[in-house]
This record gives sequence, C-alpha cells and structure tokens, in this order.
Amino acid sequence: MGTSDIYAQRVRRAQELLVTNGVDLMILTSSVDMFYLTGFTDEQRERLMFLMVPRPPREPVFVLPTLYETEARARTPVKDVRAWRDGQDPFAPVLEVLGGLGRAEPVVAIDETMFARFLLPMVKRARASWTSAAPIMVKLRLTKDAREVATMKEVGRLTDEVMAKAIAACAPGVEELTVARLIQRSFMELGAEPTAAVPIVAAGPNGAMPHYRAGHRKMARGDLVVLDFCGSVEGYWSDVTRTICIGEASEEARRVYKLVAEAHLAGVRRCVADNTCQAVDAATRGVITAGGYGEAFIHRTGHGLGLEIHEEPQIVGNNPQPLEPGMVFSVEPGVYLPGRFGARVEDCVVVNANGPATELTHFPHDELIVV
Amino acid sequence: MGTSDIYAQRVRRAQELLVTNGVDLMILTSSVDMFYLTGFTDEQRERLMFLMVPRPPREPVFVLPTLYETEARARTPVKDVRAWRDGQDPFAPVLEVLGGLGRAEPVVAIDETMFARFLLPMVKRARASWTSAAPIMVKLRLTKDAREVATMKEVGRLTDEVMAKAIAACAPGVEELTVARLIQRSFMELGAEPTAAVPIVAAGPNGAMPHYRAGHRKMARGDLVVLDFCGSVEGYWSDVTRTICIGEASEEARRVYKLVAEAHLAGVRRCVADNTCQAVDAATRGVITAGGYGEAFIHRTGHGLGLEIHEEPQIVGNNPQPLEPGMVFSVEPGVYLPGRFGARVEDCVVVNANGPATELTHFPHDELIVV
Repeated sequence: MGTSDIYAQRVRRAQELLVTNGVDLMILTSSVDMFYLTGFTDEQRERLMFLMVPRPPREPVFVLPTLYETEARARTPVKDVRAWRDGQDPFAPVLEVLGGLGRAEPVVAIDETMFARFLLPMVKRARASWTSAAPIMVKLRLTKDAREVATMKEVGRLTDEVMAKAIAACAPGVEELTVARLIQRSFMELGAEPTAAVPIVAAGPNGAMPHYRAGHRKMARGDLVVLDFCGSVEGYWSDVTRTICIGEASEEARRVYKLVAEAHLAGVRRCVADNTCQAVDAATRGVITAGGYGEAFIHRTGHGLGLEIHEEPQIVGNNPQPLEPGMVFSVEPGVYLPGRFGARVEDCVVVNANGPATELTHFPHDELIVV
Repeated sequence: MGTSDIYAQRVRRAQELLVTNGVDLMILTSSVDMFYLTGFTDEQRERLMFLMVPRPPREPVFVLPTLYETEARARTPVKDVRAWRDGQDPFAPVLEVLGGLGRAEPVVAIDETMFARFLLPMVKRARASWTSAAPIMVKLRLTKDAREVATMKEVGRLTDEVMAKAIAACAPGVEELTVARLIQRSFMELGAEPTAAVPIVAAGPNGAMPHYRAGHRKMARGDLVVLDFCGSVEGYWSDVTRTICIGEASEEARRVYKLVAEAHLAGVRRCVADNTCQAVDAATRGVITAGGYGEAFIHRTGHGLGLEIHEEPQIVGNNPQPLEPGMVFSVEPGVYLPGRFGARVEDCVVVNANGPATELTHFPHDELIVV
C-alpha cells in the first residue's frame, strides 16, 4: 500500500468514527493528528491551518494560508483546499464549512492541541456543541501497525547507540549540559531528526526532580546520574532512561537502584495482551512499596509513545483499559528523594498478540552501572 | 538587577495591565509567556501546568504536576505553588483560585497558545467571561529591553556564521536536506540551542513554496536556492533568509532577485520610530509591484521576533501601528513563481529611538551570490 493510500484510508476510518461517536465534524489544527491523517503538517503558530473532516459522504477540507497551498495540494489526499491570504479573515472559510453542514447546532470535535487563539474566536462566532477529538484520534492512534512498529524499532536501535555514547561521556567533573548536547548531536549524526527538548541529565540531587533537564552541575563522585531522552525518526519517538553512578555508590543508592530495576522488570513482565494498564502500574508500584519507598514514586508507571512522546494509553493506577496488541508505552518506575538523589529505569514496549512484550530499547539495566 | 528581580517586576507589570484591561485573572499555560514572567516553563503536553496571575493585591499561583514542584519553588518568584499528583483532578486547584476571586462571572484572560485540552474543560466547568491574554502579553513583550536586544544581537552574529557555512556547502548535486542538517549542526557547534524545525533549503521550483522546508532535491545548475532559518540563544530567536544561485542564473531570476533585494532595502530604510508597520509593508510591496511582480508577493512583509519566531508586530498592509524603539521584526519581501522558482531576502531589525534601525544579521545580499 502506497503512503497516499494509507492516508486516504486513515481519513475514511476517522470518518467512520465520527458517525460512531455522534460527531458531525472534526477540526484538527497543525498537529501530529493532522500529520497522522494526511502526512502533512507544520508547527502550530499564529496562522490558522485546519483540516476539517466531516461525516461521509462529505469530503475533508483543508483551510490554510496561501503559502501552504501548493504543498498541501501536492502532498496530501485532500482535494478541497481553501487558502486564505494574509489580511483576510481566516475564519470565513471555516464558518462556511460549518454552515454547510445544515445543522443548527452541529457536534464539532476539536483537536486536543488546538491553540486558544483559534478555538476561542470559533466558540464566539459559531453555534455548535464543542467536544474533544481525542476519543476519535486516540482510537485511531492507540495501536500501531507493522510499519509504525518497524519505524519505532529503528529509532529504538539508534537510541541504544546514543545511550552508550552518553554513558561513556559521564565522569567526575563533566557538566550535565555537556552530556545533554552530546546526546542531541549523536542523534543527528545517526540520522535521527533534531529535537529541541534538552535531554535529562540529572546528577546528584537534581535527579530527585523528575523533569529537571540538564544544567551546569558537574558530576561528582558518589552522584547517581539519571539520563532520560527521546529521539525521533519519521515523526515516531523513542523514550529511554538509565541511571548510573559516578564512582562508588552509597549503600542506600545501590538499594534504591536495585528496587527500581526490579520494579521495571516486574512491570514489563505484565505487559501482555488482555492484562490491564493498572495491573502494570500495580506491579511496579508493588515492588517499590514493598521496599519501603512507595511515597517516593511520585508519578505514573508510564505513558503511550508514538507520534507524541506522551500519548495514550496511560499506565496509571486507575486505568482498567485492557492492553491490546500494537500498543506502545513506557514502563518507568522511579524513586525521588528531594535534596539527595533520584533513580529511574525506562524502556518502551510493544504489546504482542501472544507472549511477552517486545522492548524497543535494550541497553543493560540489571546492575547499577558505575563509571 | 538580578534575574529574579526581573521576573518579579514583569509579574507586577502584568498585574497592572490586568487592571488597565479590565481583566480579573490571567491564566498562562506552559509557554513562552510563562517563561517571560517567571523564567520557567516546559513544553506543553498532556499535564496541566498553569500560572494564574490575579489583580493585585492577590498573588500569582502556580498549579502544576508534583514532578515540577521542587523546580518551580527553587527557580521562580511565585510563592504559592499548588501541586497535583497523577490521578488527581488538576482542575480542582484551578477552580479554587477562580472561586476565590469572589466574582460571579470573572473576566479571565487565556494564553493564546493554551491547548484545547485545558481550555474546553475549563469553559465547561467554570463560569467566566473568557478572553485572550494577548493584549496583555503582547504589550509586555512588544518592545525588547537592552538585555534582550544584546541576546538577539548575539544570536544574529551566530546566524551570520551559519549562513556562511550553509552557502559554502551549496553546489550542484548537493541535496537540500544535507545543507539543512548542516545548518542545525552548525548552530549547536556554536553553542546555540538545538531546534527541531527543519531549516528551509528550497532549490529550484521548491523555492516557490514559501514554507517548503527541505527535501531530497539535488541542487542543479540554474537553480535559485532559498535558505531561511532560525537559531536561538537563551530562548531568543534569529531569523534570516538569503537566496543564492547555483551556476548561471536566468535573466528573469537575476531580475527578480534584484527587485527583491531592492524591496528589502526600501523596507529596512522605513524602519524608524514613529513610522508605521503598514508603511514598511507599502515600501517593500511598492518596489515589487512597480517591477511587475506584485501578485507574486503572496505574504506580509514581516513579523515580530523575540521569544517566538513569529510574534507582534505584524508588518502587514492594514496595520497602522506606530513603530516604537525596541521593537524587533523581520523585513522579508519575496516573489514566488509556482513551478519555477522563488526568491526572498530577510533580515530582522531593532527600531531605535533615533536614526536608522539596527540590522541583526549582516550577511551580504546586495548582489545575487552565485556558487
């Protein structure tokens, strides 16, 4: 199947879900959702760019600035492209499509990532029942097809290579940011897409802040260092975390690391079809709680991964959602001791129809690596 | 003035503008606006992170996930930090702050870039008059102080270096993406922040699509090549465009280039305090229209630049806004001939209190560079 067929088929599946979900029209802004359905998008900025997907037999409409018109016509399966020029009212073609639905108060599903600058004026100018497009787009993107999984395995392979380089660069006196920049450069050298997000390289007490990025701290003997980063290929992401030690680790650091690594393993083992998201969370959390650090595991066990670094499913305690073949998500238990240190181990897995899940990254993690 | 004083002062100025604008509360999501006011932000993803700024004497409140709590307390001037944990309702503390205003229907100004995933549930759950925070944040960020201008000069200097490297790499048979990746790597090597956006390297007919990025086309003799890219330092951006030719240029390509370069010069000359945005647009457009290509100049003359690549002011035909000292924006006329070629020249300028504007990039552009 050619790529244009893939996008045409995805649009048709979206239209079927509109009917099932009682939605008259779905409006996507520049986003990974737009990319998923058409193979085309750009960063969301100040100019309105909407993909409007109505129920069949109506056809999808692209409303976009003239400067994208040629490209959208050439690269997407959408035939009806309505371009607006700087100085014109970009909402005029949008309201025209809404009016053309022939409903007094259509149910309109909105992209989760649409900016307020586009949503607020629509809400004020059009009469509709506004809802989220997430139920439709999450359903479409929740399980990955073979082609998507192959891409994610490839980016996982590159990510293992980058982890090896990053750990080799860690040593006493080395600044966190030096290793962070090396990670970003290494992805580019391997042919992955450049990423703006600064990798997490968190040494010593910085490791106790789960979303600390990287700063000017120099690694010191005895520091645990949390390395957590993502790479992307063709829009699909990897996500991995390893925790290593500079020189000799304290007794507590070794004990905490062992607990986190065991929790990670317990979680991955539960990633089998028809198990649930909350069962995976319970497995990791159970190990850490039994070890006496339950209060220090302050986040969910994991998140879905694909065109976004964080997407569905949520591997969290109150999510009874069954695991399905093709789901891809992280398993990343951690322990955070403010002012002292943190430890986390993360791999992403693909759920299989039968048997254990496939891990997308393979860098060793059973023993605390000391450099 | 220390950086924490700068942020405290910016919050106070924002609070004064709330009063002037008849707004009771401003809600910012993770964004450059949040960064501007606090020095702290992260990418906007799926977890709610709000900076809520009420009128004085009330104090600002941070509502954020527990995993950012330590960092927000350590790095921002905001004292009232209310953290929510995965599994809890993140809107609960938000509604509490709204309720605490003591108004039946408070006027609430929303960050322009807030995702629908945060805005739609608020609109459904809280009674308020929703409006945009843009008038407040644009006013705060519209003119840059000396410290900001110094940073933008520095990133401009790096950008000139990168342009020299990029042009040196252009030659017959070289793929657009090869040069695009070189641009990204060069910024990193010079110490700028890595950027995810693929630079524009558009050869031959691709140059006729103003927002085409870079692809697999190999540069061929006679191609005009449009190079347009941005770098950032401490969150502040540069933006530059040059158009060069591979081998001998056609007579029309040379004529169009000359027109665009003249239009650019005419625009930059008008960037003086108390002139208007539309006068700058009229100056560039006048030259191109007089040359017979008015219809092929399909976008505005320019856009503001700062913490965002596109911000206020808009250098567009219907904007009578006066130019003020400290405004920074692009002047970037272009001509686009679909299926054939495009040409654009862009520098960003700082408006001065007296005399001509200061250009932030200086790479030569008077003559068409042929490589």
